[in-house]
Amino acid sequence: MGGDRAPDAVVAGVHLALKEVKAKLVLLGEEDKLRPHLSRLKALGVEFVDCGESIGMDESPVQAVRGKKDSSIVQGLKASAADSDNSAFFSAGHSGAVFAAALLAMGRIEGVERPAIVTTLPTLGGGHCILLDAGANIDCRPNHLRDFAYMGSTYARVYLRQARPTVGILSNGEEESKGTDLTRAAHALLKDDPHLNYVGYVEGKEIFTGKQHVVVTDGFTGNVVLKSLEGLGKTVSAIIRGELERTLFTKLGALFSMPALRNVQRKLDYAEVGAAPLLGVDGNCFIGHGRSNALAIKNGILRAQEAIELRLHPILRDQFRELATAQARQNATPVAPSR
Amino acid sequence: MGGDRAPDAVVAGVHLALKEVKAKLVLLGEEDKLRPHLSRLKALGVEFVDCGESIGMDESPVQAVRGKKDSSIVQGLKASAADSDNSAFFSAGHSGAVFAAALLAMGRIEGVERPAIVTTLPTLGGGHCILLDAGANIDCRPNHLRDFAYMGSTYARVYLRQARPTVGILSNGEEESKGTDLTRAAHALLKDDPHLNYVGYVEGKEIFTGKQHVVVTDGFTGNVVLKSLEGLGKTVSAIIRGELERTLFTKLGALFSMPALRNVQRKLDYAEVGAAPLLGVDGNCFIGHGRSNALAIKNGILRAQEAIELRLHPILRDQFRELATAQARQNATPVAPSR
Repeated sequence: MGGDRAPDAVVAGVHLALKEVKAKLVLLGEEDKLRPHLSRLKALGVEFVDCGESIGMDESPVQAVRGKKDSSIVQGLKASAADSDNSAFFSAGHSGAVFAAALLAMGRIEGVERPAIVTTLPTLGGGHCILLDAGANIDCRPNHLRDFAYMGSTYARVYLRQARPTVGILSNGEEESKGTDLTRAAHALLKDDPHLNYVGYVEGKEIFTGKQHVVVTDGFTGNVVLKSLEGLGKTVSAIIRGELERTLFTKLGALFSMPALRNVQRKLDYAEVGAAPLLGVDGNCFIGHGRSNALAIKNGILRAQEAIELRLHPILRDQFRELATAQARQNATPVAPSR
Repeated sequence: MGGDRAPDAVVAGVHLALKEVKAKLVLLGEEDKLRPHLSRLKALGVEFVDCGESIGMDESPVQAVRGKKDSSIVQGLKASAADSDNSAFFSAGHSGAVFAAALLAMGRIEGVERPAIVTTLPTLGGGHCILLDAGANIDCRPNHLRDFAYMGSTYARVYLRQARPTVGILSNGEEESKGTDLTRAAHALLKDDPHLNYVGYVEGKEIFTGKQHVVVTDGFTGNVVLKSLEGLGKTVSAIIRGELERTLFTKLGALFSMPALRNVQRKLDYAEVGAAPLLGVDGNCFIGHGRSNALAIKNGILRAQEAIELRLHPILRDQFRELATAQARQNATPVAPSR
């Protein structure tokens, strides 16, 4: 039921995913609205769970989650939480409601105070940079940024296959004196952390150089940056299309360069990424764009499957357990007073 | 002496500007380092002021400004402040030092607590959006965002020729409940302000739609957003160039579409903009990019001249005087207690 183009885009995305996916798919929604599609989906091996209600895109997240226990979002997260290592939940529905419902149905990994939404951006050289939090936590404290650093680092190890991913804090300059009270306090927490390959402050432009694997920020800044980038991306596409149509000469050029430009657009397209994981909840939860088309739904499903295959959730859970053990050991060891 | 490519790029930029500029140009710098260029520049009508020293790009702004009273930045700002309505200062040097020196040499317009750096971004439809603060003020209070709104609105009236420019606060969503403590308090200050065409919260992507004329934010968020956009812009250019060179087919396309792509790049190029005004100081002060080439220097000079022609500084000063008068009148008028 999720997203502006549901249920048609979701059903079409499921059909696309069925050609590639190995995991068993369970679709949750209102039978009334999905009836024309169900017999074909069931014949292809998709399990269907009829939910009595759905959460609309405009509802208040917390109220909706509390009031609509039978909604597909709440039901789906509960079902996934019951076997958290071997299942994953994906929705292109109300992201605030998914966040609230995931906290309620899955709970948090022990040691994580604030789960965060993670986005993956393309970099020069064909790599990726991980930015979190993308908007789940507006008012953050320094230890929240530290949790984001741990989660982002583990995610980069698992997804980007980086042995020792670099982690930086997003700031308005590289010098320690820059930043806000929040970034300076978080920097003090991270700068001697033996569990991280922490590189200090990074500027916005370094998201794209390919040198940084993980960039950490509060959810307000992260959200504003991501939406600004989305806006610029669209503007550039529109300007390019406009420019290419100006003269016969450039129209001819467009004909020849369209495959290249389409490749560019594909690299920057949210639909290619499909979904952003909500890290820190005690299970696998993926949030899709509200405007998801069939391709985005397919890729969201594939990313959710990948999380199960790569054992993202158990790895993350174990990491926070080890951090707690290391912390306890450090606190127990008598040390000479440091300066 | 300013910028990574000084003095050559600056001198070349002055020569380019001389072909278009009507104002008298005064160049400030170290005679030792500029000697080969001076006789030709003087012959073309450029006045030269020998300054005993310069502020390097890596110096601490406040210390440098206090210690180097003879530097070209301090001398230039002092000279410009002496006739603030009819002159303008431009430098591609250390932006922090220019900011500190401008506060010292020019002072602030009465009523402005925090001067701000203003950037102009291209929008769909060929217009522009004004974003401030771009990085001068990291920790802001709500009344600072209100000052930015007033200054941005006046700047949009003067530069964008908008009779009633829209003003929004950058946030992570449009609803009043979104944002941080800072944005919510600033929103409360602005929402019934009769002096502004205030539209409420705007998201990052709306910077580029062409519907918003002025977007207000704190200097940390503004700086991070702008540098992220700069990073994406460069990445997109590089990806496009890479893609266009992949096959004979796309190479042929590149040949035909290059004029269009160059037009795109020009629209997004900082060198085309040249300089960002520092609004709120008691004079005209423009800050160029540290990487300014000759074209950027030329455009910076032209923008500084435009400020004089458009009477930006006296208009801004008068506006704050009127706001203070309106405020005093309102405070003096006995009113029935409101809810």
